This record gives sequence, structure tokens and C-alpha cells, in this order.
Amino acid sequence: MLKKKKKNGGSSEPCVKKQIQFADQKQEFNKRPSKIGRRSLSRSISQSSTDSYSSAASYTDSSDDETSPRDKQQKNSKGNGDFCIKNIKQADFGRREIEIAEQEMPALMALRKRAQGEKPLAGAKVVGCTHITAQTAVLMETLSALGAQCRWAACNIYSTQNEVAAALAEGGFSVFAWKGESEDDFWWCIDRCVNVEGWQPNMILDDGGDLTHWIYKKYPNMFKKIKGIVEESVTGVHRLYQLSKAGKLCVPAMNVNDSVTKQKFDNLYCCRESILDGLKRTTDVMFGGKQVVVCGYGEVGKGCCAALKAMGSIVYVTEIDPICALQACMDGFRLVKLNEVIRQVDIVITCTGNKNVVVREYLDRMKNGCIVCNMGHSNTEIDVASLRTPELTWERVRSQVDHVIWPDGKRIVLLAEGRLLNLSCSTVPTFVLSITATTQALALIELYNAPEGRYKQDVYLLPKKMDEYVASLHLPTFDAHLTELSDEQAKYLGLNKNGPFKPNYYRY
Amino acid sequence: MLKKKKKNGGSSEPCVKKQIQFADQKQEFNKRPSKIGRRSLSRSISQSSTDSYSSAASYTDSSDDETSPRDKQQKNSKGNGDFCIKNIKQADFGRREIEIAEQEMPALMALRKRAQGEKPLAGAKVVGCTHITAQTAVLMETLSALGAQCRWAACNIYSTQNEVAAALAEGGFSVFAWKGESEDDFWWCIDRCVNVEGWQPNMILDDGGDLTHWIYKKYPNMFKKIKGIVEESVTGVHRLYQLSKAGKLCVPAMNVNDSVTKQKFDNLYCCRESILDGLKRTTDVMFGGKQVVVCGYGEVGKGCCAALKAMGSIVYVTEIDPICALQACMDGFRLVKLNEVIRQVDIVITCTGNKNVVVREYLDRMKNGCIVCNMGHSNTEIDVASLRTPELTWERVRSQVDHVIWPDGKRIVLLAEGRLLNLSCSTVPTFVLSITATTQALALIELYNAPEGRYKQDVYLLPKKMDEYVASLHLPTFDAHLTELSDEQAKYLGLNKNGPFKPNYYRY
Amino acid sequence: MLKKKKKNGGSSEPCVKKQIQFADQKQEFNKRPSKIGRRSLSRSISQSSTDSYSSAASYTDSSDDETSPRDKQQKNSKGNGDFCIKNIKQADFGRREIEIAEQEMPALMALRKRAQGEKPLAGAKVVGCTHITAQTAVLMETLSALGAQCRWAACNIYSTQNEVAAALAEGGFSVFAWKGESEDDFWWCIDRCVNVEGWQPNMILDDGGDLTHWIYKKYPNMFKKIKGIVEESVTGVHRLYQLSKAGKLCVPAMNVNDSVTKQKFDNLYCCRESILDGLKRTTDVMFGGKQVVVCGYGEVGKGCCAALKAMGSIVYVTEIDPICALQACMDGFRLVKLNEVIRQVDIVITCTGNKNVVVREYLDRMKNGCIVCNMGHSNTEIDVASLRTPELTWERVRSQVDHVIWPDGKRIVLLAEGRLLNLSCSTVPTFVLSITATTQALALIELYNAPEGRYKQDVYLLPKKMDEYVASLHLPTFDAHLTELSDEQAKYLGLNKNGPFKPNYYRY
Amino acid sequence: MLKKKKKNGGSSEPCVKKQIQFADQKQEFNKRPSKIGRRSLSRSISQSSTDSYSSAASYTDSSDDETSPRDKQQKNSKGNGDFCIKNIKQADFGRREIEIAEQEMPALMALRKRAQGEKPLAGAKVVGCTHITAQTAVLMETLSALGAQCRWAACNIYSTQNEVAAALAEGGFSVFAWKGESEDDFWWCIDRCVNVEGWQPNMILDDGGDLTHWIYKKYPNMFKKIKGIVEESVTGVHRLYQLSKAGKLCVPAMNVNDSVTKQKFDNLYCCRESILDGLKRTTDVMFGGKQVVVCGYGEVGKGCCAALKAMGSIVYVTEIDPICALQACMDGFRLVKLNEVIRQVDIVITCTGNKNVVVREYLDRMKNGCIVCNMGHSNTEIDVASLRTPELTWERVRSQVDHVIWPDGKRIVLLAEGRLLNLSCSTVPTFVLSITATTQALALIELYNAPEGRYKQDVYLLPKKMDEYVASLHLPTFDAHLTELSDEQAKYLGLNKNGPFKPNYYRY
Repeated sequence: MLKKKKKNGGSSEPCVKKQIQFADQKQEFNKRPSKIGRRSLSRSISQSSTDSYSSAASYTDSSDDETSPRDKQQKNSKGNGDFCIKNIKQADFGRREIEIAEQEMPALMALRKRAQGEKPLAGAKVVGCTHITAQTAVLMETLSALGAQCRWAACNIYSTQNEVAAALAEGGFSVFAWKGESEDDFWWCIDRCVNVEGWQPNMILDDGGDLTHWIYKKYPNMFKKIKGIVEESVTGVHRLYQLSKAGKLCVPAMNVNDSVTKQKFDNLYCCRESILDGLKRTTDVMFGGKQVVVCGYGEVGKGCCAALKAMGSIVYVTEIDPICALQACMDGFRLVKLNEVIRQVDIVITCTGNKNVVVREYLDRMKNGCIVCNMGHSNTEIDVASLRTPELTWERVRSQVDHVIWPDGKRIVLLAEGRLLNLSCSTVPTFVLSITATTQALALIELYNAPEGRYKQDVYLLPKKMDEYVASLHLPTFDAHLTELSDEQAKYLGLNKNGPFKPNYYRY
Repeated sequence: MLKKKKKNGGSSEPCVKKQIQFADQKQEFNKRPSKIGRRSLSRSISQSSTDSYSSAASYTDSSDDETSPRDKQQKNSKGNGDFCIKNIKQADFGRREIEIAEQEMPALMALRKRAQGEKPLAGAKVVGCTHITAQTAVLMETLSALGAQCRWAACNIYSTQNEVAAALAEGGFSVFAWKGESEDDFWWCIDRCVNVEGWQPNMILDDGGDLTHWIYKKYPNMFKKIKGIVEESVTGVHRLYQLSKAGKLCVPAMNVNDSVTKQKFDNLYCCRESILDGLKRTTDVMFGGKQVVVCGYGEVGKGCCAALKAMGSIVYVTEIDPICALQACMDGFRLVKLNEVIRQVDIVITCTGNKNVVVREYLDRMKNGCIVCNMGHSNTEIDVASLRTPELTWERVRSQVDHVIWPDGKRIVLLAEGRLLNLSCSTVPTFVLSITATTQALALIELYNAPEGRYKQDVYLLPKKMDEYVASLHLPTFDAHLTELSDEQAKYLGLNKNGPFKPNYYRY
Repeated sequence: MLKKKKKNGGSSEPCVKKQIQFADQKQEFNKRPSKIGRRSLSRSISQSSTDSYSSAASYTDSSDDETSPRDKQQKNSKGNGDFCIKNIKQADFGRREIEIAEQEMPALMALRKRAQGEKPLAGAKVVGCTHITAQTAVLMETLSALGAQCRWAACNIYSTQNEVAAALAEGGFSVFAWKGESEDDFWWCIDRCVNVEGWQPNMILDDGGDLTHWIYKKYPNMFKKIKGIVEESVTGVHRLYQLSKAGKLCVPAMNVNDSVTKQKFDNLYCCRESILDGLKRTTDVMFGGKQVVVCGYGEVGKGCCAALKAMGSIVYVTEIDPICALQACMDGFRLVKLNEVIRQVDIVITCTGNKNVVVREYLDRMKNGCIVCNMGHSNTEIDVASLRTPELTWERVRSQVDHVIWPDGKRIVLLAEGRLLNLSCSTVPTFVLSITATTQALALIELYNAPEGRYKQDVYLLPKKMDEYVASLHLPTFDAHLTELSDEQAKYLGLNKNGPFKPNYYRY
Repeated sequence: MLKKKKKNGGSSEPCVKKQIQFADQKQEFNKRPSKIGRRSLSRSISQSSTDSYSSAASYTDSSDDETSPRDKQQKNSKGNGDFCIKNIKQADFGRREIEIAEQEMPALMALRKRAQGEKPLAGAKVVGCTHITAQTAVLMETLSALGAQCRWAACNIYSTQNEVAAALAEGGFSVFAWKGESEDDFWWCIDRCVNVEGWQPNMILDDGGDLTHWIYKKYPNMFKKIKGIVEESVTGVHRLYQLSKAGKLCVPAMNVNDSVTKQKFDNLYCCRESILDGLKRTTDVMFGGKQVVVCGYGEVGKGCCAALKAMGSIVYVTEIDPICALQACMDGFRLVKLNEVIRQVDIVITCTGNKNVVVREYLDRMKNGCIVCNMGHSNTEIDVASLRTPELTWERVRSQVDHVIWPDGKRIVLLAEGRLLNLSCSTVPTFVLSITATTQALALIELYNAPEGRYKQDVYLLPKKMDEYVASLHLPTFDAHLTELSDEQAKYLGLNKNGPFKPNYYRY
């Protein structure tokens, strides 16, 4: 299967965080300039694509006919045919998936309810390019309930849940996406979203920057009517900052990647759970009593360390930053250099965002049975390439699990070939995706309704107050009751009773 | 497929702890006297049968021919044909599985090493009836290295790893077992183990008591030469105590089920990990902030509570025993009655060993999306039968996951149909199995070598000293260094320097 | 000040657990045969005697006149003079202390309430010998409310709270005790309790065995009317077992020291808190990041390790028992020999019950500033004597804190001169004392009301059902709600609905 | 004793964080405009003034003569008399205290060592106004070793450790401070520091802003030679920002209060320990099973909650900020409004920085024995004034512990009269003070050596690189080993190998 090419894509974007590669994807990296052209798969995809327990729907695809959706003529039950998907007949199945997702995305459902009176997106014409999953569907249907018209393409050639796309098409959305697009399909779908007679988008919701790039390249005039861009991914945000620096950004853009809630949930809280899940699903390892070294004590490392310590592992930490190092000490972890413990540990976890943290020299010195995995950043942290030498034997023992065997019989257990463990071998709870989706919706509302002049041609963080609002929409899930400031207290603190409650530099 | 019947089995044994039922197994319970005749599957089976990541070998079976092994003529590479298994050609694959298991069963490997000089089981003729898995194979090959001759049958009609059985047969063991035996096959295999010309067992290693039962029934005279029985399961131990009470036990028996190390590992430490694993694999639920009620605060409940608290859940406990209740309080859990919290919790976990702990009345009052599962004891804790009424709809959403839907649309997420979550939806680490297997080996050695008169025709617990020895054999796994008493200290404490170190009533 | 001598005491009782020595007490141990004649101070004393924050009352004593109470003629406000205490005028102050204690001893107060109808101790004549503190007063007044008559002496020459004794005397109790008795006073007081015209005890409540010993020696005939002995201390229990072995025990005795609740609270739960408290009050040490070695992983060690780990310390454990060692591993602690970590640790804590665990060799190798303390057992675990050599300088820097200074300037911080840290430098919550006092009351009721023949001339553990009852009486403190078995469930489990709920060998 | 008045002081500075009031200090607050004129005592003071175990030295003062130091003529052993302290004869005692402090301030000692070659403060004339404690002495002697000349006054009329002042004077420092200064004394001492013939300061180290204020008012011309101000307190920093806003700040100033390390240690890590310590020392409460409500989930609240949860308490949280609220949920705490749990909790802890969080209405509804204390901010959080009504009786039961008694007998246990628990009833580890002192020293070096133009007349945060340097100097205490970036890695990350390693907005 052809990997979606990126030669049209910005060829200089940096290595993205949190990307994954499918196991069966052809490894072409070495043929390319470093850090170029890999397609990021945000976490949302992992749920359907890698979960061993995922619903039957995903597997029905394989028995589907081989006709390209581009060659099919499909209409939904109302006769509308402005979409291109795998199979409209899967709509019912997709609808059930969407309904299940709705139950865990209470914030978007609350937004819909509040929108019954006012329609803050009335008149908005949103073109979107994201993973197309049940969670995205809940977002799209929320945008619609808020008054927006939507056209949508997939930001990844593998990640579309076909049955969800069918349900959206049946519901009247103009969706152009299917699982297993070719590169040509990919850009064709994007083009079909924007290149429509009699319809021009005034808002962009992007994940990775390809949609934005396409419009810049093909239809630059469209930006005259566009009120703003909302971008979720690290890669896309990076591209926007580059455009801004170069003075080429011609509309305001909102960086939702760096909002507090998204960061804390994507990193600390989510990884605290997914490190355990990822290790168990792949290796069934018992955590109690195991010696583990965690490289890096940022949010991801903090989550991994807390979870493993709680399960009875003995955890060592490596760090380059003395402040994080001091935190590791105060949290009860021995701060070591990797070479001090590499011979004795049972598990090595990288969470640095750096490259070549675990190099061949360390791999050579690990003990038999040592598990090596990466929670951090793309696939650079473990020098996997150094293991592809003739004297070492690779043995695939399970999906995502390789034994690398030394001449003396020592086996290293390498997970996900050094790619992100939590995306390859674990899942992301819908609740985490809900936070991101809500943030995206609020960012669209903010940009669409902002008075002239509030936002210039620059990249903005979501106002803290809206970050707080996203959080508040998720509290009912926990039956959590917020306290309100009295007038007297608000005055004493010099705060508005409705927030924001903290200065921008507050560390949480 | 026919469930292995038990009408020959002791029809009054109580409901066994830690048993599992396969999902596709016909539910015939209601046709029978209560608590009768269910075959226990000890945990060892779960690894191969329920794990979504298990090795390819398990799946090759399905493509096997349909000929019954009883109708085949097979010989191993040395021309030996004294076995009956699925397919001798799978031996290489099985050997690799055994080798992997060896790496995590250091205690048995250490026993082998020590046996290079002396052969404590020289002359022993062991007939065994257990799950036949890679871990069992390591045990059998250890017994052999210690000097014993072995003949083996499966204690369960589903749990045999065919490729492991093949490797054992290739290695010269007389194994009679395959996955998917009929009931008739089951007893035929057992009979082939004991009914041999020119060979008579002098030791029994049993798991569930069927082998012991068969010999009692068919070959009672064999007990004249038998030096003892080693029994691992709750059911089998219960049968032995009944025999003993009735004055019918004619050889010493060793209850290895109640050794300290086995109990702590099977319950507290193992469940601490498997509750998280089982919930994640089935539901992908995020633990942080979830309200959970755990029914029962014994070792299993303690393990579940500790793990969930550590992951950020808010945990409530119910108990009937005021001492365990006070422990729950001191450990930081609100002690409640189930009806006080049933409306608000997100997850309900039973660990009581009791029946009808979660009844329809409670299920009716749970909130939408509540997850219900059982970690405790057979499948009686949740009154699943009460959910099989016309007004409720069942929807199977994943393997082991059912949505039970109320007329108003409320969904309860029922896991493993109320059977044991940790066996159905999780795995048991080889390390835990290693502790049990080592205890079995030591019990065989003890009974076989005990001087006349040390053991009478009764059921014994493993001497504390041997329990300590099992533990000590597992310490090197953790690179743990034990301190030795000085002569002066031993004298001061009135202890032997080599143990036992605690009185029998010590609580640990 | 003269130490209370014990030559009349059983000279062969073993070294008692949980004893303390006052700091200013003359160290005469070396003059005696080892392990002989030290008076145990149960934990109850520590509250008044060592707490830096204790109420003013304790300090008023110093300004008291020097007249011996034996030379004073005092009467209470009702004209009763059958007591001998320091100063009856302190009664009001003592009453307030008792009232405060009542608030934290809910179980005894509940017993009083239930006794409003029946008087289970009607006719009982209890002679007691315990520490005389506010908590004891609550117990005595409860016994009285249950129908008993009481006469009381102190089991320790230092531990009496004079103002509480005054309040008891004012309330009509015949109390013979004051702080700072001589040895002669000690036995005189005991004698005054039992040697009364027209009154003969029929129950003994003892703490340490001195009262029992005195009656054995002086008034052996009294045992004809005595229905039983309730003994709380390790020492006293040991003496009773010796009497029993020797065939000299002439009444039933109840060992309340080994009840489950008492053991768990005195050791695990209490030490989990007092290790932190004791270290902070003496050294103000910051726990975060500190390296600590805990010697011994029994209940006390488990409590210490859990607390320090939770505060961010890095904890190493030493053990001699492989089962406890394996528990330490699974709980996440590196198991080491002391010499492997002695150079690097910041704190050394002994909890072994052994002697010479920390010897001079280890003390020589500790790093500058290392804190050394004992949570375990008398004062034998740290070889303090080995530090009293000419080349080392001792510097008392605070109460209970010595710097021992090596010639090169290295300082070791020795706490409580190696005696029990939690008794010397911390306090025991009234709640823990409440559990013991309730157990004592129930044991008295049980022995007093037991039908002829239930108890023989032997030492008994409290029936498990009463242990459970003690626990149940303490649950309301936590607003904890126990679940009751249904009839059906009780039948299923083969249990009585009111307990006992566990077999005797259950480990909790 | 007269409280130091502040009418000369800035009468509009806001209520300072972390201030304490001595228990015997006259309460004059109500006579003044709110939030005015209270003198902050930084934490350093608490160690000597409130610790029940503090060394004898502190108590010798009371027996001192009554002559004012201003009326004495004292000279040190070298004949130098340029100081004014209580009693030069206490110098030896003070020197020992300083030596002990040196052991726990490794970073300053490391700075001294590095300064053996270069003297980065050569030529610096530092005038300081801080608490004068052993820890300050280590700082002053470090500044001196780095080349600076120092003159010093106390920033608080109560906090001076007289024996330390004596040791400093004996060592040649011009110190003007004693415990129990009058207000007039206070300003006289400051004046003596700056108003010297032939000596003019070029650096200011201030804590609270009084010194800075005095120079502004009396000697404004001095600022021509002053290179910068280093200010530690919240109050002082606030004053500086006000000066800056008003355009009146005429030299650069460094805000060391908001450095990352100081914030994390002063709040999260320190409070995690001091909440337990403060509660135990005052009330001996058992934490296990207690229900606690913590108001506020900032860093202080996070520390309190983590500690109490770890000790087995059941913790509820109140919050106004939805982001912090969501964090509380994910960390496993029920988020409630105070009125939902006020009737059931055993302990109420405020950490909000707000006022009137616990008002009379809540106090009325608390249950008998409820403990109420404040960890947050000055003394405004609990409305203590509302308890001073005729129907309520106050009873002082211990130092810092009042029982407030309702007409029905209900008692509330109020700690430290609502002032900061951790300062009044606990201690601050020297290690925490070491971080602040090191930061101060580095800020002085930075400002003194900064090239012309790097700093303008504004308030600056310490450069992140120096924050990291402070952290790195404290790592050896934990035997922590930092990893260094390789050249390749530094390039990949776009970082300098020596840091700074994080962007300014990084949240840690």
C-alpha cells in the first residue's frame, strides 16, 4: 500500500510529537532527508486502528469490495450525493458508534444544548481536515447544531472509520474520506472540500496543516473571506508560527495544542494510565518489584513514574534539566545516568523528546529480557536503526513486540519498533479526545465572533478564560461542584467572579 | 461443543474459587444442583486462551485437520509413540514457548541446577493432571531433571496448548491432552496416564481432584504404592478435606493452595495489576476521577482498591466483616453500603466470594454507562440471571463486553458476563505461575522423601520452612539480597538461622 | 531518682516489646543479667510524659509540695478517703482531661450506653494495675457503669497523670498511684488494692504482670474466688504462658495483646504515622528525596516504609525472612544488605525485634549527618553501647537528640539513645488506646460471664467474634456503614450473620 | 511589648503571604485599615521561635539582663565594636548553630569553594535587612567569601537569633539586631547599617522592602551608586512593582520570590510535609480514616492533599478555578462545595489565598471535635473574628491550640488562631531555606556583574538559567546525577548544552 506522499507538503516541518506509524507501513524514512514528510497521526486514530478489542465494524472493511470510492455513485437516503466515502450502507453502524461516543463527550453535548437559543456559528462555513472518527463526528454535529455548515476531509490516509463517515454522509455532511486513501486520493478529497461552486469557507479547522497548505497553494484568494484558522497539532502549529515569522500568515490562527487542559490530559494524566496499559497488552509483564528507568521527567515522564511507582516498581529517572531533576528527587526517584543502571533494569522507557537517548551501546549492556519502549516523541529516542545489523536476529513474537536476539542468546523486548507505545499499543480515552474537541469548537466560536481588531494576523493561544470554560464543561462528568466567589471575595482578590482566575504564567 | 460433564466427579464440591468459563461454553448451570460439576480452570489457562496478543501458535490450531488425536498414529523423532496429542509437528513452536517461559521461572531453573548432583526425585513416578501450558512444561521438565518419571493428562478440556504438548511428547514425555477434548476424551486421557503395563505411579500431582478421583474409583489398589498427593486447587483441596473427614483418605496429601506466597501473589499482588488491565482491555475507561465501589476488602479487594486509588479513582468499599472494614477506613476508603453509592458510581467491582452481591435492584439504579465486573469468585457475585429478562436488551459490543440496555436507553456495561474479570480479560504473569509450580515441585520432594511417619493420612499445609524456601528462590529475580542472622542474633531470637522465621499464626 | 526495682518481679521474663525508658532514668541494665527486670511502659504513657505540647496540668506537679502522698490525709468531697494520690484538689483539671479523652473513645461510651439496661459486670470486683491516664479513667468509669467495683494501682512509677488520679478519687474510685513512686511505694500501692478488709477481687486486669505476681506471692488463696485475668502486655502475657506451661496457672487468662485489631493498630497503622512525627519533632528533617534504609519488613517496617515512600523518600529494606523480603520487593522497595547502602543513606530505621542490627562497624561507615533511630523493640537494635568510647564525643542538641561526633568531625544524629522513637518522641493517638481499652473491657465481660467450663486454667486469645465486635464499635468514628449478610448469603457462605466472618488462620 | 509600628512603612502594601504573628502579639488589626501594616515574618523565623525542641540557646534570653543593647558598649575579641547586638558572649553558641546550618546548605558552601579563585563580589558593599538566623549567617559569610562587605539589620523585631547575631559580630560583621526590638530600635538599626561615614552600599538585599523604603526616604542620593536591589518577599516585590509602575524605581531589582525552585519548594514540597507535622504537633490526631476538606487546590493545596491521602485520610477539595478543579478530580479527590461536607469532616484546611473561606455559618455546622486550620495566606481565610462572640467560650488547651466551645458543648479545635499552621506550629527545613538563600546570592552576583544595559530600572525575574543553576547546586544533596546532552542532541533540540532547557512558559 502506498504511503501518502508529502512532497507537496511543507517539506521542512520538524519532527512531530505524538505521531505514530502503522506497523505495516513501508519504512521509507532513510531515503529521505531527516525529519521530513512523515504524516502525523494524532492520538484519536489509535482507538480504532490499534485496539485489539475494537468493535466488529473495523473488520468488516476487509471484506469490502475493492472499487475506489471515487468510482462509486452513492446517495444518502435523502438523495444527497455530495460526499465520497466507502459505503453509505454502513451508516447505521456508524451512528451507534457516534451515539456511544456522545455519552463520553458531555461538554460538546452541553454546548449543543446551550446553542438551542443562540447559534454562535450561524453563517459559519467550516472546512475541516482531521481524523474522521466517532469523536470527530460528535464535534462536527455539534458545530452544525451551533449553526455552522461543514465540509470535511481526512488528515490521514489510514485513520478514517468508514462507518462513521457513512453516518455523517447519511446525516447530510459533505465528507470526503475513507480508510486507505492513496496520496492522490488524499489531496483530491481536500480539494473537493474547498473547491465547490457557490460555497466558500470562512473558517478552517486543521490538524497537521495540510488543508491550510493546500488553500495557500491553490486558492490563496480564499483567505480574503476566511476569519481564522484553528490548528490542533504540533506540526501544524509549527507551520503557522513559521508562516507568521515569515510575515505570510494572512488571517488569525488559534493554537489549541498548547492549552492547559489539553497539555495536562494528553501528557500527565493520559500517560499515567497508558504506560501501564501499553506494557501489559504487549508483554503481560508484572510491575511489582521491577526495576525501571524512565528517561525524562517532563509531564509524560512524571505520569509514567507515578503509575509505575504506585504499582510497586522501583523507578530510576534520568534528566538533563536540573529543575525537573530536583522534582524527580523530591518525588522519590533516584536520579541517575543511564549507564549507571542500564545493566540492572527490567524496563527502559524514553520520554525525552530527544533523539538517540537509548543507543546501541546501552542496548548491548541491557540484561536478558529487558523491555525497551518509547513514550516520548516520534521514533527517534531509541536508536532502532542500530539494531538492524547482521549479528542480531529479530523475531516478531506478537503484534508490536519484537525480540531482538544477540549472538549469546540475550533477548531484548522492543515494543512498537521504538514508536510511541501509548499510540501503538494502547488507546486514548474518549474523555481526553473530548477535551480537545471542545477546545476546537470554542476556538472556532471565538475567532468567528471576535470583534474586528481583537485578533491580528498572528498565532494566538486560547484565552485563559476559555481554557477554564473547557475545564468547567468537563466537571459534571465527575459530579464535581465548583465553588463560586462571593462579591466580597472577588473584590478582595481583584478577580472577576467568572474568571479568569489565574495569571497567564501560572504553572498549575 | 460439549462441556466436560462431571457426573463422575464428586457432585458435592463447592463452587471453586478462581474458575473461569469460556464465553462460548453452554450455560447449563441451571439444570443442575447448585454448585456442582463445573470444571475449574486455574489461571494458567487464561494466558493462552483469552489473550488478544497471544502468539501465533494458538491460531494455527484452527487450520488443523479434524481427525481426533485418538485416531492418529504419531511418533516423535526418536520413534517413541507413548503419547496422544494433536500434532507432533508443532514441537518446535512449543519448544520456543517453553524456552520463553523458562526465562521467567527462575526458581524451577535453580532447582534443576541444584539437582545436578543429587536427584531428590530419583525413583519417583509422578502422574499429573494439570493445565498443559508452557509453564507446566517447565515444571515437568524440572521434575524430570530431579529424577522423576512423568505421565500427564490435562485437567481441562479447553486449556491445553497443543504446541507445548507436542514439544513435551517430542522430549519423551507421555502426554495425553489436546485442546477441545470431549468428556469421554478427558477421562480416556487420564486413564491412559495411570493404566499402563509395567508402570505404576507413586506420586500424584493433581489440579481439581479428577485424577485422584479416577484412581479412587477405578484403581483403589494403586494407593498402596502411592506416597502422597499434591493438590493445587481450591476444589481439589476441598475434596481432600472431605475424604479426610470421612476417614477415606489413604495417603498423605499436601495442600499447596494455601501457602503464603501463593495466596499473596494470586490475590493481593496479582489483582492489584489485573484489575487495571482487565478494565482497560475491555472498556478503555479512564481511571482518573472515576467513582468506583469495590465490594469486599479481603486480599483481592485490597489489591483492587490500592490500584484504583493510585490511578486517581475515588474508591468506596463495602464489607460485612468489621475488621476488614476498619482496615478499609484506615487505608483511606469510605465504607458504605452499596445502596448509598450505587446511583453515583462509574464502576462496580465485586470481590466478596459471596453470591448475589449485585442484584437486579442495584443494577436498576446504576447510572447510564456504569461498568460492572467481578474479581471475586466464580460467577455468582453479580446476579446476571436477573438481567436476562425480556425488557432488557443485550448487545455484545466486544469480546467479553456486553451492553445491557434498559427500556429508557440506559446502558450497563457488563464484563465477562459476570465471570472473573482477571481470568477472562487479563493475563496472569508467568512469575505468579512460577511460584505455584515451585511450590508443587517442593511439595512432591517433601512427600516423596519424608521419613516414615512424618505424614499421616491427612491433608497438610506445606511446612513454613518450604514456603520460605519458595520465596527465597524467587528473590534473585528482583536482585534482592537477604540478610543472614548472626549466631548471636539467632540465639537471641530463639530461631534457627535457616528459618522458619515466623510462627505459624503470623499474619504477614 | 531511683529506678523501680524488680527483684520481686519475675526475673526471667524476656525483653519486652514496646517498652520505653525515661531519659533521666538511671541506666542500670549492664549490671543485670540480660533481658531482666525492666519495667515496660506501654504506649499509653507516652502521651503525657513525653509530649512537648501536653497540657499545663502535667507541669503543675513540679511546684507541688514534697510530702509523700503516703503521709497525707486526703478525702474527696463526699468524705471518702479510701485512696492515695498526689493531690485531690487537681480533680477538676483531671475531669476535663477525662472528658476530652471520652470524645475519642466512642466504643467505651457505646458500651456504657448499652449497659444502661443490663449490667454485665454486676458483682464483679476488679483489681487493676495499669498506667493511670485519662484513657484508663474512661475505661475504669466504663467498667463501673457496667456494674463493676474497681480498685486500681499504677503499673509504672512514672506514668501516672496525677490530676486524672485525683478526678478518679473524687469520683469514688479507690486509686493508689502518683507520679514518681519509689519501688517501695509501687508495691505498697498494689498491696493496698488487694489487701482490704471485707473486699476481695474476683477479676484481675493487669499490664505487665506485677499485680498477678504479687497476688501469687502474697495471697495465693485469693485465686479461689478469681474468675480470670486479663493481661495486655507482651511481658505479662509471656509470664502467663510460662505459668501455664509450668502448670501453675490456676485461673483462665485472656491474652488481649494478640488480638487482630490491637496488633494492626499498634503496629502498621500507628507506626505509619509516628515514624514521620517522631523524625520531624526531633530533627525537622525534610523527607523528600532522602535515602532511607528500614531494617525489617514486619508490620512496623511496612508502616514506616509506606509513610516514607509516600513523602518522597527513597527507601531500602533489609530482611532475614524471604517471605517478608518478597513482599518488600512487590511493594516497590529494593531489598539490600545493610552494608550495601550504609554509606549512602540519610536515615537508618530499625524495626526488627532483633539485637545488634546496627553495630559500630555500620555506624563508622555512615555519612555525616546520618540519622539513626529505632522503631522496633526495646533498645537493643542499635548497639548504642559501642558508641560510648573515648574517641567519640556525645553532644545533646535537643531533648532526645544526640550528636555523636567522630574524630574527623563526622556527626551521627542518634534519636532517643536508641530507644523506641515512637514512644519517646511521638505520641499515641487516643483512638489506638481506645481499641486496647475496649478489648480489655470485653475480655473482662467474657471471662466474668463465661459459663463454667468454657475456659480452663490456660491462656486464651479473645474469641474472634469479640475481636470483630471491638472493630465494629470503632466504625462509627469513621461514619462507616457495615453491610449485613442476607439469610441466603449467610447460608451460602456457611456463616452466622453476626460473625465470626473469618477462620482463625485468616491473615488480614 | 510594643509591636513594631509601620506608620513609616508603606501603608498600602497588600497583605503578605506566608507571614506569621506571634501568639503573644497584641491584636491590633481591627483598629487599622485592612491589610495594612503587618510585619511579615518569613519562614526562617519559625524554626527558632516556635519549635518545642529548639536548642537551649533560645531560652537563655529570658534570663538576660534588661539593658537595651543600644545602651551597651560591646567589642568582639578583636576589639571591633561596629555592631549592636544583645550579648557578644553568646558567640560560641551561635557559631555552633551556624556550623549545623552549614551542613544542610550545600549550595552556598559550593559557591564558597568556587569563589576561592575568583571573587565575583569583590568590591560589592551589600547592605541587608532580613531575618537574622543561622541560615542567614551562612548566606552572609558566603557573600563575604565571594568578596563582599556586608552590613546587616533585622527585618523583623522578634525574629533575631541573638546568639547567631553574636557569632556574626564576633566574626567581624556589622550587625545591628536583637530579639525584641522596639519600633524605634528597628529603624535605628536600619539607619546604622546605611548611614556610615566612609562607606556607602552598592547593593541592597531586602526582605519586606523596609530597607529599600528607608533609603528612598532618607538617602535617595545613595541610589546613584547602587547597582541593584534583590528582594525576596511577596510584600517587597509588590512594593517594587508599584515603584516601577509609578516610574520611581531608579535601579534594577531582582524578584527572587517567583523563581521556580523557590515556589515549588516553599509551596508544594514543603507543605506536603508541614501539614502533617503541624497537625500532629498540635493535636496528635490520627490521620488514617479521617475525613478532611482542603479548600483550594493550588500548589499548597496539592501538597496537603497528597500527604493526607497518603496517610489514609479521605480528602475532599473545594475550588473556584475549573482547571485546578479538574486536576483535583484526576488526582482522585471529590470536588465539593464546602457546605456539602462541612457537617461530616474531621479536619478543615484552608489553602486559598482568599478571605472568609470558612465563615461562622460553616463553623456553626461543624461536628464536635472538628479541627480547623489555615495553610494558605495570612490570617484571613478563617473568619476567626466571628468566633469572638459572647456565647462561645474559648479555652486555650495547648500553645497554638484553642477549643472554641458552643453553648451545647460542641468544641471546635482552632489552630494558631487561624494564622498559618506551617509557620506557627511546624518548622521549615533548612534545605528549603538554602534554596532561597542561594537564589539571593546568585541574584546579587548577577546584578553586580551584569554589563551596562542588561538590566534597566525595572523588576526582573531571575534568568531561567540561574534558576536551573540553583537547582543544580542542590542535586548533590540527593546524590543525583544529571545527564548531559551530546552535541548532536543539543543541536537536534536547538538547545545550548548548559541550558536553559525550557521555554519561559514551561509549567513544570
